[in-house]
Amino acid sequence: MRTAAVVGTGLIGTSVALALTHSGVSVHLLDADESAARTAASLGAGTVGTPPAPADIAVLAVPPGSIAEELAKQQSNGLARSYTDVASVKAGPERGAVDRADFTCYIGGHPMAGRETSGPLSACSTLFEGRSWVLTPTPDTAIDTLNRALEVVALCRAVPVVMESGTHDRAVALVSHTPHVVASLMAARLENMPEEAAQLVGQGLRDVTRVAGSDPRLWVDILDANASAVASILQELTTDLSGVVAGLRSLASDSADERAQGMTLVTDLLSRGRKGHERVPGKHGKKPFPCIPVHVLIGDQAGELARLVSTVAELGVNIEEMTIDHSPGEATGLVALMVEAASAAQLARRLGDGGWTVQRTPPRPDVPAPAAPAVGSPPRAVPWAADTA
Amino acid sequence: MRTAAVVGTGLIGTSVALALTHSGVSVHLLDADESAARTAASLGAGTVGTPPAPADIAVLAVPPGSIAEELAKQQSNGLARSYTDVASVKAGPERGAVDRADFTCYIGGHPMAGRETSGPLSACSTLFEGRSWVLTPTPDTAIDTLNRALEVVALCRAVPVVMESGTHDRAVALVSHTPHVVASLMAARLENMPEEAAQLVGQGLRDVTRVAGSDPRLWVDILDANASAVASILQELTTDLSGVVAGLRSLASDSADERAQGMTLVTDLLSRGRKGHERVPGKHGKKPFPCIPVHVLIGDQAGELARLVSTVAELGVNIEEMTIDHSPGEATGLVALMVEAASAAQLARRLGDGGWTVQRTPPRPDVPAPAAPAVGSPPRAVPWAADTA
Repeated sequence: MRTAAVVGTGLIGTSVALALTHSGVSVHLLDADESAARTAASLGAGTVGTPPAPADIAVLAVPPGSIAEELAKQQSNGLARSYTDVASVKAGPERGAVDRADFTCYIGGHPMAGRETSGPLSACSTLFEGRSWVLTPTPDTAIDTLNRALEVVALCRAVPVVMESGTHDRAVALVSHTPHVVASLMAARLENMPEEAAQLVGQGLRDVTRVAGSDPRLWVDILDANASAVASILQELTTDLSGVVAGLRSLASDSADERAQGMTLVTDLLSRGRKGHERVPGKHGKKPFPCIPVHVLIGDQAGELARLVSTVAELGVNIEEMTIDHSPGEATGLVALMVEAASAAQLARRLGDGGWTVQRTPPRPDVPAPAAPAVGSPPRAVPWAADTA
Repeated sequence: MRTAAVVGTGLIGTSVALALTHSGVSVHLLDADESAARTAASLGAGTVGTPPAPADIAVLAVPPGSIAEELAKQQSNGLARSYTDVASVKAGPERGAVDRADFTCYIGGHPMAGRETSGPLSACSTLFEGRSWVLTPTPDTAIDTLNRALEVVALCRAVPVVMESGTHDRAVALVSHTPHVVASLMAARLENMPEEAAQLVGQGLRDVTRVAGSDPRLWVDILDANASAVASILQELTTDLSGVVAGLRSLASDSADERAQGMTLVTDLLSRGRKGHERVPGKHGKKPFPCIPVHVLIGDQAGELARLVSTVAELGVNIEEMTIDHSPGEATGLVALMVEAASAAQLARRLGDGGWTVQRTPPRPDVPAPAAPAVGSPPRAVPWAADTA
């Protein structure tokens, strides 16, 4: 690949352009807002304007609803020999391409990466490193077009995953779009949260509601483009929700029979939830070894954490994950070091010998949490009578 | 305080006993399962059996449903001069105490700490350090009893928060019990997740469903004891859920009017969710300064993370929080260092100069994420067309 065009120089488009430019590809930048294209160019992402001859591939980094139109327009301009896009839904753009453009030289794409900020100034060439990048060829997609898209993915150092567009959309409805709505549904309960309740907030609530902090304008577009799939999953959720509300009402009753029924309904949901949770892959995917946390208390001053991490490295132990948990207003922090289970007990002992305040690690590393996959999930799940949630 | 009794030597009871023993208090351990008490004693938590004279305070670390009964029984045995408990709901035990025992010398308690494991072998004396510990005195609570409970909290190095029992239960229904059910509702959708979808799982889904990995048997007891309060909040959520499902169905329609209505309904929920999310305090509570992430790519080998953290410490920058994100199966990891906004740009530049692969940080540290409180929330919220969720 020698030349590429990027249409739409926002966060994703500019990041793709930077990665391609850094790999020696000659990149041409286009944006309806030419100042955005100039900003991207000033960052070293390429040159503003259409290429003198058709580029090898054009990456359409425009909103999902505009892709078919942009594709038809750029094809009639002869912008490139192949086209791909980066939208988070795929079936709609594909249908649009079939209706309005030459779809044999178009292949849908969706890089599973992003940032909390938008626009070309937030872009960076390493945004996609190690991330999945879905491609959705159809039986009509030209092999050249597939290969050019695969090269874009490779130059961005992402991992290509080929998938049918409908499969992709159902998948992201389940693993991304529905969880977003669920987080918003929970977070909407907190608008009028009393101060006393805010004092008792723990990591559980923070985790459940985190994605609800995103920009509603971006998300209404994403949900719009995948509305039916998300509605169907939420409809199933509604059935479970009615069941658990009925179960809780029964638990609050005086009748033993009704209480027993309530117990069954609530336990059923929690058990299915746990089974579903077991299907969620950890951050490392399927690690060949189990990890467990070693908890260490540290002060809040600069250097304390570095001293801890260095000590662990000197002991030859690899930290797979780490979380730092401060209680509001407190100076001490609790660091959870996720390490290979086989090293945990020795690490805890040697840190303790070295003067660190180590919380006791369960003695049998092969029986870590009741909460199934310790790998990848933060170490502070839910305990006996008390809670962190 | 010179003597204490701990009834129930599970995770929480044994941890309290260890903390008190380490502070020089003479602790007497009781458990219906005497082998559990002996295990706790073998860890240095105290001595097994009733004290020769009434202890200063007895900590009842038994399930919520057994507290009133245990209180009445131990009071008739003359176990202690004051009593408290550690259950995660408070109004039920309080009513039980009023009905069945001398409630002037009883005060409800709820330490907001725990672990993913249970039993005395998981206990540790530092479990409560820096954590909130709710106490729920009534107008009838003797001042001596309040003070003895405050001393237990202080010796466990926790932070006392005094609250009315009903207020406490409504608060934990909102910030802990309902989020747990919501996580289970989402996770229950994943039981039959197709492999393709599992490939696209990101941090968003992991966060939303994390607490659903907990033991259903423990949680059905917690929900049972606070069923009405949780049912009421879920009932409100049901109304919003119907609205958003209707909104999504409208978005999928062909009528422009209907689509406009759908847009309004979905945007309304997302906006209220974002406002609610803004009420969630960060890990540090109200920090006087804003924090933003600096993203650095590292290899997976031992020592790499330590070298990074040491470098940051040498540059005099305090890491407020850190997350390490590995894509499944990839060797490189993306470290997000949350640092004071004022230091971020310089830190990023100096790390880059030192040969680290730093992802570009937004140029204006005072305008971090659209997602409101950057402090305390992991740095990878949701982007433009793509997503991490």
